[in-house]
Amino acid sequence: MKLIAASLLAITCLATPAQSTFINTLMPQPQHITVANGRLLLTDSFRIETGASHNPILQRATERLLQRLEAKTALQLTSGAGTNALHITVDDSTATRPVFGQDESYSLKVEANGIQLHAKTIFGAMYGMETLFQLLQGSGKDFFFPTATIDDAPRFPWRGLMIDPGRHFLSVDTVLRTIDGMAATKLNVLHWHLTEDQGFRIESKRFPKLHQLGSNGQYYTQEQIKQVIAYATDRGIRVLPEFDMPGHTTTWMVAYPELGSRKPGATYTIADSNGVKDPVFDPTKESTYKFLDAYFAEMTALFPDEYMHIGGDENNGKDWGANADIQAYMKAHNIPTTAALQTAFNHRLQTIVTKYHKKMVGWDEILQPDLPPDVIIQNWHGPEFLINAAKQGHQGFLSQPFYLDHMRSAEEVYSYDPIPAGSNLTPAQAKLVLGGEICMWGEQVDDLAIDSRIWPRGAVIAERFWSPATTRDVADMYRRLGPMQLRLDALGLQNISGPQRGLRQLAGPNPVEQQALATFDSVLQPVDFHERYAEQHTGPSTPFGRLVDFTVPDPPMRYEFAAAVNEYLHSADKSRRMIRANQLSHTFLRWREASMAVDRLAQNSPLIAEEVERRRQFRAIAEMGLSAVLTMQANKPAEADWLSAQKQVLTDAAKHTELVDFVILKPLNDLVEATQAP
Amino acid sequence: MKLIAASLLAITCLATPAQSTFINTLMPQPQHITVANGRLLLTDSFRIETGASHNPILQRATERLLQRLEAKTALQLTSGAGTNALHITVDDSTATRPVFGQDESYSLKVEANGIQLHAKTIFGAMYGMETLFQLLQGSGKDFFFPTATIDDAPRFPWRGLMIDPGRHFLSVDTVLRTIDGMAATKLNVLHWHLTEDQGFRIESKRFPKLHQLGSNGQYYTQEQIKQVIAYATDRGIRVLPEFDMPGHTTTWMVAYPELGSRKPGATYTIADSNGVKDPVFDPTKESTYKFLDAYFAEMTALFPDEYMHIGGDENNGKDWGANADIQAYMKAHNIPTTAALQTAFNHRLQTIVTKYHKKMVGWDEILQPDLPPDVIIQNWHGPEFLINAAKQGHQGFLSQPFYLDHMRSAEEVYSYDPIPAGSNLTPAQAKLVLGGEICMWGEQVDDLAIDSRIWPRGAVIAERFWSPATTRDVADMYRRLGPMQLRLDALGLQNISGPQRGLRQLAGPNPVEQQALATFDSVLQPVDFHERYAEQHTGPSTPFGRLVDFTVPDPPMRYEFAAAVNEYLHSADKSRRMIRANQLSHTFLRWREASMAVDRLAQNSPLIAEEVERRRQFRAIAEMGLSAVLTMQANKPAEADWLSAQKQVLTDAAKHTELVDFVILKPLNDLVEATQAP
Repeated sequence: MKLIAASLLAITCLATPAQSTFINTLMPQPQHITVANGRLLLTDSFRIETGASHNPILQRATERLLQRLEAKTALQLTSGAGTNALHITVDDSTATRPVFGQDESYSLKVEANGIQLHAKTIFGAMYGMETLFQLLQGSGKDFFFPTATIDDAPRFPWRGLMIDPGRHFLSVDTVLRTIDGMAATKLNVLHWHLTEDQGFRIESKRFPKLHQLGSNGQYYTQEQIKQVIAYATDRGIRVLPEFDMPGHTTTWMVAYPELGSRKPGATYTIADSNGVKDPVFDPTKESTYKFLDAYFAEMTALFPDEYMHIGGDENNGKDWGANADIQAYMKAHNIPTTAALQTAFNHRLQTIVTKYHKKMVGWDEILQPDLPPDVIIQNWHGPEFLINAAKQGHQGFLSQPFYLDHMRSAEEVYSYDPIPAGSNLTPAQAKLVLGGEICMWGEQVDDLAIDSRIWPRGAVIAERFWSPATTRDVADMYRRLGPMQLRLDALGLQNISGPQRGLRQLAGPNPVEQQALATFDSVLQPVDFHERYAEQHTGPSTPFGRLVDFTVPDPPMRYEFAAAVNEYLHSADKSRRMIRANQLSHTFLRWREASMAVDRLAQNSPLIAEEVERRRQFRAIAEMGLSAVLTMQANKPAEADWLSAQKQVLTDAAKHTELVDFVILKPLNDLVEATQAP
Repeated sequence: MKLIAASLLAITCLATPAQSTFINTLMPQPQHITVANGRLLLTDSFRIETGASHNPILQRATERLLQRLEAKTALQLTSGAGTNALHITVDDSTATRPVFGQDESYSLKVEANGIQLHAKTIFGAMYGMETLFQLLQGSGKDFFFPTATIDDAPRFPWRGLMIDPGRHFLSVDTVLRTIDGMAATKLNVLHWHLTEDQGFRIESKRFPKLHQLGSNGQYYTQEQIKQVIAYATDRGIRVLPEFDMPGHTTTWMVAYPELGSRKPGATYTIADSNGVKDPVFDPTKESTYKFLDAYFAEMTALFPDEYMHIGGDENNGKDWGANADIQAYMKAHNIPTTAALQTAFNHRLQTIVTKYHKKMVGWDEILQPDLPPDVIIQNWHGPEFLINAAKQGHQGFLSQPFYLDHMRSAEEVYSYDPIPAGSNLTPAQAKLVLGGEICMWGEQVDDLAIDSRIWPRGAVIAERFWSPATTRDVADMYRRLGPMQLRLDALGLQNISGPQRGLRQLAGPNPVEQQALATFDSVLQPVDFHERYAEQHTGPSTPFGRLVDFTVPDPPMRYEFAAAVNEYLHSADKSRRMIRANQLSHTFLRWREASMAVDRLAQNSPLIAEEVERRRQFRAIAEMGLSAVLTMQANKPAEADWLSAQKQVLTDAAKHTELVDFVILKPLNDLVEATQAP
């Protein structure tokens, strides 16, 4: 692990204005970049040289870079007979897979006649190649790289993304393209939540009943697991499997009831609802550990990473409390609580995992007084918990503010930090905060919706894990997010195309109605996980395909509308206020027109018809905005009746219903209130 | 094979107007449909019963239907405890794969309290399920099937689609989703062109050098071949492999030079350009047939279909002419021409293929006087050739008008018929015309662009192969094509999302510029195959990713603009003319605005910058249209100077350049000419 002193991002532009063409769209921002006034033209004579730094993983990475450049430019770059070259040198090019704590730094120097990329490891070099790709720009008929010097390294060594095929299976294709997205955003740990109450998703050759009886037939074969690991390895990404225990284990017991804590003869069925379940391993029987030893013998051989996640969260202790034998065991062994019993279980587990040369990762609950220091705690109880753990000498990383199904905006997730300001950690303690993980829980997503739930917000969190803590300009982040969205899209991710397809399917073939539905949808975002569960009682068999599933969290309209209203109301520049007035009027007219078209569409489109309140409110909002701007332009205060009616609309529109929330209410309220004092 | 008398499509609507809600969006049109004034509501109690007709292929088809209905409606249909049922009965449900000539008919009766689907085979039942899915409509918050009785069967038994991974490899994913599209359009033969001068795309365990040396590493393993066959079989689609020979065989000789007709010691390399190549099997050596016998022993075991395509096209005879031994052989055996030598080769091939219980399919060139009658000829020399072959007693099917890379409009391909009017075939001869095949050659497409090249035009040709010959209402076809496009899109095809992604990548993140580029692109289509080859010299390594690759053939604007201009100029209804005048003015204004935005975009987007002429012409066209409408509305004839200037613009715009053609020039010319006589 290498922590770079968090320097303020410095862009030193040496060019004269006329020649300065560099537009910074990098994400994550590098630690340090200096731009000069020149270009290296990308032509079909471009080639990549790795010289003495040959490594098959690096070689494939260079081929991918060439392919991406070809796809972007339509230049044929595979001739190999070029003159303009990217020269890559790596100090130690022997790596066969990424490991925790490796050196990930690189330096990149683009000059008019060539590019030098130097790194200590092949994975550092791969980060440099990603940055180079992001530097590509166009000008007239030319593609070019701006001359620049970049010195870069991640702030944190643990930059993860958790996906959960347990609740809803995710196809291998989905996992692979998610890895592509991670590579493009410089994330380096795929945390794969493979076993759950709702599904056991990994083949066991030793205990085939686990995946055969513990799933609906949807699981990863070991060949597929190897395919994913190889794909991730090629992209510098570690694969961290999670076998959540002792709770979240119903599907183990569907196959092997004797592992559970209920009385002999009890049977278990795959959970057909979400929420915390009672089934839990019996930690008092030696046979449990014998089984787990054999199972981990198989799994630790399958996964090469030195870490293994054993879960440990949300064991409600009920089945332990209800079992007299277990209660007697606790008394006999002086174990006062189920939490203490779980600690005892963890100790045994730790022994097994260690036997197979792995280190343990687990959720907050595993943090008990005598936890060994090489265990890593995945924090989901909030940053204070993590900081406190660090002060007690434990390693950990931050997850909870990065739960994507909470539907926080990019702006909000960007504001969280694994080491919040004022944490008062010593340098040694700060080193124990390893980074963070984005968590994409599986209750309410499947292959269809997952891309637009993870991205682009995942890229913003990835920047938080990589870039200096001082990189926090929200407007600049949103500006760079547009190009980043397109890069993910170009990799074949469905961050843009998925929601577009879904809306198109709901709207039907009429382009006017397609456009109208997109406009309606542009002011909405999905309700958060808890609200959706409350409204819809989602379970593993709930079909997805409603408006909410194609509605993206933090749509661009949220930030853009707020900025427009803010400038309209507060700019000192009258011409800017006038431009914004016109723009807002135009927007509200467009919303009104879309509202009418969506109502027509609802006549034959049941999944639009069910949005009764939201459609009515959208119409009222369009009228409200238009009236507010007209009133203000007329320079007369609004009438009290009108004002109170609008307040009521805003209050109603703020209530959760129909699975989608408006994202424009706060600035709209500002606009309405501003009509009082013209 | 069962030829249904081509009855005029009859829609008998028994409903009173107020209750009649059926909107026919079926494609292909069934032979006969009668609609009554009722509905069967689709609710979560819907279920499918196959009763005594159980068959695992049919079972999986019912599961797919439920999944598609779930995705479309968000109703949970998998509970299995329903009351409203689709009852499927099949006379003979023993089929394990589709075979040529099987009964594909079905009858479907939707009543308010249940649906009866009856077919003679499981594949007929699957067509009925596809039709049922297409009947689904929405009204208010309800989804329903309109009550209707449909009796249906295909007009032709051979309804194929050829894909060509030889020139550009196509991933297994692409092949599978293409099969999905075929199933949705009731096509039944996937013709898979597996070996070419540019790539040998199928693993041979007997002769592994074929795929190892004859490809760039991109080929289908036998496991993947089996996967594709199983997937196609599940969807009622036969897989017809093509091993093109004796020409188009360079890659065989890369691995085994001794198979070729050049002197001993000659070596071959994989073709790195398109076009007809000289390498050809040596038909005078017994070792050639010994090799082919062993190869076909392997391949005939891999592919279960009773037919095998041996190509036979475009052998230029050069290598035979240049080889003294072959010339001597021809003299000695009294073989006058290279065509006759190829016939001799075909006879030997026929013996081999027959030995392995397969029948032969080949391109036109194999039709020689003594061709056995069970050989099927794939016609690419034009319908007359096919009709003549039928008159000579040969079976065949039509391809050439359905070459998709010729970029013909849906309207045009719809106008062709395997048995053109006036063919004067006896009923027995007509039976020899088996249908047709859509051909998607691979020189200028890859995984990225192929979907929008095949679809939706493939659906229109599929209707020509299935529906009565009298089904030829072009306006109605285009009306139904919109919903059909969305059904293909819903299956995961990239017919819509692919071009959208490509344009988005060219346009960058600014939504205004994205919209402008889409507007520009809406009046363009790709130049045809020959023109593109001439302009770009495309080869196997040419990267795709220019505007042309995301520009769709026959864009909706072509037909819509022509219809708008036609009504504007010729409607007897003045209000219609006025509406069209407004609509056209609005369109031209939008084009002008888009033109300016696209020019701005071109400053930093090299692949837009290169469209110099087309951008300039687009601007001129927008101005031209606007002036024309204004002139006519002012009721004054246009000035001669203006007129001649416009004619010059139209002449220039009609010339091929920059890989894209305008699709709106003919009606625009009509509009301009109409300004002469107000």
